[in-house]
Amino acid sequence: MAEATTDTTGLTLLGRPAGLPASPEEARLERVPNPHPGTRYCVRFAAPEFTSLCPLTGQPDFAHLVIDYIPGEWLVESKSLKLYLGSFRNHGAFHEACTVAIARRLVDELSPEWLRIGGYWYPRGGIPIDIFYATGPVPEGVWVPDQGVPGYRGRG
Amino acid sequence: MAEATTDTTGLTLLGRPAGLPASPEEARLERVPNPHPGTRYCVRFAAPEFTSLCPLTGQPDFAHLVIDYIPGEWLVESKSLKLYLGSFRNHGAFHEACTVAIARRLVDELSPEWLRIGGYWYPRGGIPIDIFYATGPVPEGVWVPDQGVPGYRGRG
Amino acid sequence: MAEATTDTTGLTLLGRPAGLPASPEEARLERVPNPHPGTRYCVRFAAPEFTSLCPLTGQPDFAHLVIDYIPGEWLVESKSLKLYLGSFRNHGAFHEACTVAIARRLVDELSPEWLRIGGYWYPRGGIPIDIFYATGPVPEGVWVPDQGVPGYRGRG
Amino acid sequence: MAEATTDTTGLTLLGRPAGLPASPEEARLERVPNPHPGTRYCVRFAAPEFTSLCPLTGQPDFAHLVIDYIPGEWLVESKSLKLYLGSFRNHGAFHEACTVAIARRLVDELSPEWLRIGGYWYPRGGIPIDIFYATGPVPEGVWVPDQGVPGYRGRG
Amino acid sequence: MAEATTDTTGLTLLGRPAGLPASPEEARLERVPNPHPGTRYCVRFAAPEFTSLCPLTGQPDFAHLVIDYIPGEWLVESKSLKLYLGSFRNHGAFHEACTVAIARRLVDELSPEWLRIGGYWYPRGGIPIDIFYATGPVPEGVWVPDQGVPGYRGRG
Amino acid sequence: MAEATTDTTGLTLLGRPAGLPASPEEARLERVPNPHPGTRYCVRFAAPEFTSLCPLTGQPDFAHLVIDYIPGEWLVESKSLKLYLGSFRNHGAFHEACTVAIARRLVDELSPEWLRIGGYWYPRGGIPIDIFYATGPVPEGVWVPDQGVPGYRGRG
Amino acid sequence: MAEATTDTTGLTLLGRPAGLPASPEEARLERVPNPHPGTRYCVRFAAPEFTSLCPLTGQPDFAHLVIDYIPGEWLVESKSLKLYLGSFRNHGAFHEACTVAIARRLVDELSPEWLRIGGYWYPRGGIPIDIFYATGPVPEGVWVPDQGVPGYRGRG
Amino acid sequence: MAEATTDTTGLTLLGRPAGLPASPEEARLERVPNPHPGTRYCVRFAAPEFTSLCPLTGQPDFAHLVIDYIPGEWLVESKSLKLYLGSFRNHGAFHEACTVAIARRLVDELSPEWLRIGGYWYPRGGIPIDIFYATGPVPEGVWVPDQGVPGYRGRG
Amino acid sequence: MAEATTDTTGLTLLGRPAGLPASPEEARLERVPNPHPGTRYCVRFAAPEFTSLCPLTGQPDFAHLVIDYIPGEWLVESKSLKLYLGSFRNHGAFHEACTVAIARRLVDELSPEWLRIGGYWYPRGGIPIDIFYATGPVPEGVWVPDQGVPGYRGRG
Amino acid sequence: MAEATTDTTGLTLLGRPAGLPASPEEARLERVPNPHPGTRYCVRFAAPEFTSLCPLTGQPDFAHLVIDYIPGEWLVESKSLKLYLGSFRNHGAFHEACTVAIARRLVDELSPEWLRIGGYWYPRGGIPIDIFYATGPVPEGVWVPDQGVPGYRGRG
Ligand SMILES: [Ca+2]
Ligand SMILES: [Ca+2]
Ligand SMILES: [Ca+2]
Ligand SMILES: [Ca+2]
Ligand SMILES: [Ca+2]
Ligand SMILES: [Ca+2]
Ligand SMILES: [Ca+2]
Ligand SMILES: [Ca+2]
Ligand SMILES: [Ca+2]
Ligand SMILES: [Ca+2]
Ligand SMILES: [Ca+2]
Ligand SMILES: [Ca+2]
Ligand SMILES: [Ca+2]
Ligand SMILES: [Ca+2]
Ligand SMILES: [Ca+2]
Ligand SMILES: [Ca+2]
Repeated sequence: MAEATTDTTGLTLLGRPAGLPASPEEARLERVPNPHPGTRYCVRFAAPEFTSLCPLTGQPDFAHLVIDYIPGEWLVESKSLKLYLGSFRNHGAFHEACTVAIARRLVDELSPEWLRIGGYWYPRGGIPIDIFYATGPVPEGVWVPDQGVPGYRGRG
Repeated sequence: MAEATTDTTGLTLLGRPAGLPASPEEARLERVPNPHPGTRYCVRFAAPEFTSLCPLTGQPDFAHLVIDYIPGEWLVESKSLKLYLGSFRNHGAFHEACTVAIARRLVDELSPEWLRIGGYWYPRGGIPIDIFYATGPVPEGVWVPDQGVPGYRGRG
Repeated sequence: MAEATTDTTGLTLLGRPAGLPASPEEARLERVPNPHPGTRYCVRFAAPEFTSLCPLTGQPDFAHLVIDYIPGEWLVESKSLKLYLGSFRNHGAFHEACTVAIARRLVDELSPEWLRIGGYWYPRGGIPIDIFYATGPVPEGVWVPDQGVPGYRGRG
Repeated sequence: MAEATTDTTGLTLLGRPAGLPASPEEARLERVPNPHPGTRYCVRFAAPEFTSLCPLTGQPDFAHLVIDYIPGEWLVESKSLKLYLGSFRNHGAFHEACTVAIARRLVDELSPEWLRIGGYWYPRGGIPIDIFYATGPVPEGVWVPDQGVPGYRGRG
Repeated sequence: MAEATTDTTGLTLLGRPAGLPASPEEARLERVPNPHPGTRYCVRFAAPEFTSLCPLTGQPDFAHLVIDYIPGEWLVESKSLKLYLGSFRNHGAFHEACTVAIARRLVDELSPEWLRIGGYWYPRGGIPIDIFYATGPVPEGVWVPDQGVPGYRGRG
Repeated sequence: MAEATTDTTGLTLLGRPAGLPASPEEARLERVPNPHPGTRYCVRFAAPEFTSLCPLTGQPDFAHLVIDYIPGEWLVESKSLKLYLGSFRNHGAFHEACTVAIARRLVDELSPEWLRIGGYWYPRGGIPIDIFYATGPVPEGVWVPDQGVPGYRGRG
Repeated sequence: MAEATTDTTGLTLLGRPAGLPASPEEARLERVPNPHPGTRYCVRFAAPEFTSLCPLTGQPDFAHLVIDYIPGEWLVESKSLKLYLGSFRNHGAFHEACTVAIARRLVDELSPEWLRIGGYWYPRGGIPIDIFYATGPVPEGVWVPDQGVPGYRGRG
Repeated sequence: MAEATTDTTGLTLLGRPAGLPASPEEARLERVPNPHPGTRYCVRFAAPEFTSLCPLTGQPDFAHLVIDYIPGEWLVESKSLKLYLGSFRNHGAFHEACTVAIARRLVDELSPEWLRIGGYWYPRGGIPIDIFYATGPVPEGVWVPDQGVPGYRGRG
Repeated sequence: MAEATTDTTGLTLLGRPAGLPASPEEARLERVPNPHPGTRYCVRFAAPEFTSLCPLTGQPDFAHLVIDYIPGEWLVESKSLKLYLGSFRNHGAFHEACTVAIARRLVDELSPEWLRIGGYWYPRGGIPIDIFYATGPVPEGVWVPDQGVPGYRGRG
Repeated sequence: MAEATTDTTGLTLLGRPAGLPASPEEARLERVPNPHPGTRYCVRFAAPEFTSLCPLTGQPDFAHLVIDYIPGEWLVESKSLKLYLGSFRNHGAFHEACTVAIARRLVDELSPEWLRIGGYWYPRGGIPIDIFYATGPVPEGVWVPDQGVPGYRGRG
């Protein structure tokens, strides 16, 4: 059986130096055709290096993000995803708004069959907030394991 | 796609010094409009810094609380939640009563689509009590991971 | 919203010195009215300090017990539960028989909506036995997390 | 409520010295009447001390076995189970064949309502094999937790 | 009950020295008849020693693979599986394409009742990619535990 | 060899109801004669249920405390220790000051051969503070294991 | 090199049924000659199945004990050690007194070159007590790893 | 014994809104007098929310930092420390240079008796770098536990 | 710098089929010249697949062994080590005697600069035995990390 | 205090595409001047993506490597280190020889004050080998934490 190949024509970021976009709006998400278009599978990205700003105080916020999606016609190119996530560095947004907005941007760009995001934010006031968003139930017959990020436990 | 913004007018506690309310009754839970009102997602708070009093002996009790909810029109403002939980510091209540009462107060204030609370109390007499309360089954198609708080194991 | 209060009249053990009952038969399980009778929630007790005797050899056996129940009209008073479990100290019973019998006694006394017990016994002959008993399927819409007691792994 | 007692008449191995059977065929599995015959519960044995031989090379193989069953009329007597498992010490069998054969022997002897076995074999060629066999779906309303044996992770 | 025996005639790799195939295409997957053909069970391979090359840069990639399948008439011979996986050492492929292709090759060779693969790739650009592919829903009544590979957590 | 007995005459708190002292100054630490006065050994208390107030803002602080000491002539009676620690509930003190002060009070009351305290405070501003104080080096030949409290890791 | 053999003449408990001694005083510790008398090595026993009684209230206490010793002329026979530890089941003693007394009894019987005990007691009043006793510093050149028993962490 | 109080006069950041300093040079580290100046103890800060920029590419770097110090006359005020660490957000520096520079700045400001820093950086090119710097050996008789940050393990 | 090569002439077991030796006495330990004879380093073998027989009852015993040594002129060839350890499969020996004997045989054959063995035996009677033997203190300037095998914890 | 800057002139690999060197001999290790030359600190690299070949059979070997060094005048440039480690991909060497050779090459290139390597190899024949090499004792007053790589545990 011949292995599928991935069409990378049209990519502008992969394998080249690229500065951090100044804002999410300026970030360009790039995509490649799904090499297994007739096959339903799930792709997971874990992004523990996420930071944004509090829209009220300007203080930094940090989160560990995990994104799962079932591609339709397109895969997201991972370097452009990294730059898109990095573009929140100087962007102010509340936890709930920011996490769901990332998911919706990816849905816009990729038209995946299904997508979800877990945003595991660092504690403020002794209480962390986690946000769990999915576009709907996991499609029948597709395998999507738990994200398994440990809960916050305080000390001891 | 424009990111949702959060309407914070009407908040009286966020970003200002605020003393601990003297009792749960005196605590004010504040709310902001859900920035993604047409989208079903789950919000989790982990609160490992909870303490109340035994209504019989007046001795302190401690718990690790985890609250999950699917917002309807409103999000709870997290600083007011922190102060509400802090207001149990001088309040006497049994574990079962206290844990469920917190959930019902939040339901009253937020009218969420769904809510649950896990109360993981510290052991008394060598036996800890955990309380698990949900307003009903998780709504179809919404993603709510396990709370994953480790069980009590004694020693060894 | 007024918080529910718990009616503790009629309790004879809580807050008073009480010796260990000589046998399970002599142990008295006490109960209080469920403070949230119209609300379905789950109560978990973890009891890692359980010991009984082998009915054949008289040698001590040890177990870690975890009990989950959905109260109906009654809650078990936890000090009486502790004394009931302590009353197996000089009682001989096989693992399977003992674990299920504790569950049935609680069902008899509390008429809960549902109850289960996990008995995690220490190894004999290099092989531990676990017993898992539930009165039936978890009632629809009630949240009962996994007990999550780690399996026995031997050494290494 | 009177506690069930276990009828141990007819047992020949429990509480007496007994040598290791020379082969699985020679091993005698003994059973006692189920002390709670009208009650559906699950019994788990964890056996991390299992070893057999490779049928091709005669080299030792090792496995960690976990057996779950829902008894019908009979319980397996655990010392006879230990000796049966020990009887594979000089027996040659492939991982898949051996694991499933143990399950089928137990089914033959006990006629349980349901049974499953997880065979977690030590790596050969850098790759361990796990075998998961169940006689069918878990019967409705019976509680059977995950076996929770950690996956093999190599090093690091 | 007589134990099933495994027919190993026709195998060319097991128990003999065998060099690493130069590419996946040149690798020969061998199979033996399923010793329990009328019984549905699951076989898991954990392969933490997988490496391939990036098709764009030629730099090495590493992954931890876990494969689950429910055999039909055939079992894969594990030494040939090891050599097949080793044959990716000098092969260039993207994560998504490579992981799914391994699954499809196995499906081609074994015609299993069901198969899935989890590909847990090491991070690039601070973000690891996991791929989860299954041929369809787990067949009714077959037991397939979670793969349980821990998520990537960065540092701290 | 006759076992040492402990002289409990003069104790006023053990085995009797006792309210929480209003402040550390009002708390009474009680002591009993060391039952093995000629033997050097270490006693460890783990107190994960500690809370005090921020002296500037009045907001609650939480800590997990671990105290090790080598008794001289006296042992601290543990119920009085519990009440003493509970007396910080309405007391304002900075982390560094509070942790060391607890140690010094115990030194004053017990004149131990050696004592240390680890104060593992919950994070504020995303950064927890731990305080480690010992009266000096561990005396030669006495065994004092690491406290082994896990470090704070944020999320992920 | 011929392997050392162990002289088991004079043992009265090993391999025979033996009831639990009624008290520590009545328990008989048996010993065998050290099979490697000219070699300094350390022997560790982990005993997680220990229980005694509170001398004031008669309520059960539980502990996980770990004993390390460097044998001189004698090894303790492990079944007699098990029965000795079991003999505390109906014995009242404080944690500090009980833990050190076990060590001293073993020193009396075995005259080891060195011995230590860690007593990891289950929490009372939310605070567990650990006792660490050693007869002196570890002799030069002998290897004695940490006992590595995890600290108590409360919940969360 | 009177508890030490902390002199907070002269602080300009604590308890007031304060923006992130534009660079480490502009950040102001504030200090308070050590409340226990005659007592040697160690203070630990864990800072998992650290980010800076690569001086060559401008791409974000992330680290988990842990700082231990033995105060002399001064304690660092923790809010000013948080702002100082936050000031690296737009600062370019190599891992080795950055980690050691933070330590030296603190030494300059606080003249501690001793100080160390562990910088646990997120992987680049599949390989994380950790930096461990101390001003010298731990002073005799002061207790400084291991930082215990887990090593990087890749996947699986 | 040219890399050292290893002289493998004279080896009779490596890379060839070899049956399990019938006893430790019949097992042949083979050795190769140390490729870095002027350099002091430590070699660790972890052997979790060890089994022997109880010399009194003939019942199987299991252990997890970890061996560390600092080679002198010779390295042990690892396949011969594996066969030597496998040769205890039908050999009867007490835990203490067996563990130390393995160390001494290796010392005899290899004349290492230093050697130690940790024998972590599976529990019997609820109590596992660990044996720690070293030929002496770790030589100055050589790095030998802890073996880090987790202690036995029973259940829960 | 001005932060040290790093002189990167003369580097040929960093920030540019670079193919994998064909062998360790052909790999070029590059270095930059130590930005804190008068300060003793330790640098750790964790490299879980290491693979080489068995010099006898040509089969792949895998290892997790951890390297610690105290720089003298030079730091190793980390991209060149990555390429050097990658150059073992087609290189045959025994575990002991290979691990120590990597250390010696680094010593040759960097003349560090001190260096050590831990090589944690994947199991062969059920037994993994770890190699621990240091150039000598850790220099007085420098802080080098344990590498803390978990031991191999087999299954269960
Ligand atoms: Ca906290
Ligand atoms: Ca307790
Ligand atoms: Ca325990
Ligand atoms: Ca065992
Ligand atoms: Ca094991
Ligand atoms: Ca492996
Ligand atoms: Ca990372
Ligand atoms: Ca944080
Ligand atoms: Ca993190
Ligand atoms: Ca706690
Ligand atoms: Ca906690
Ligand atoms: Ca990696
Ligand atoms: Ca790995
Ligand atoms: Ca046990
Ligand atoms: Ca336990
Ligand atoms: Ca193995």
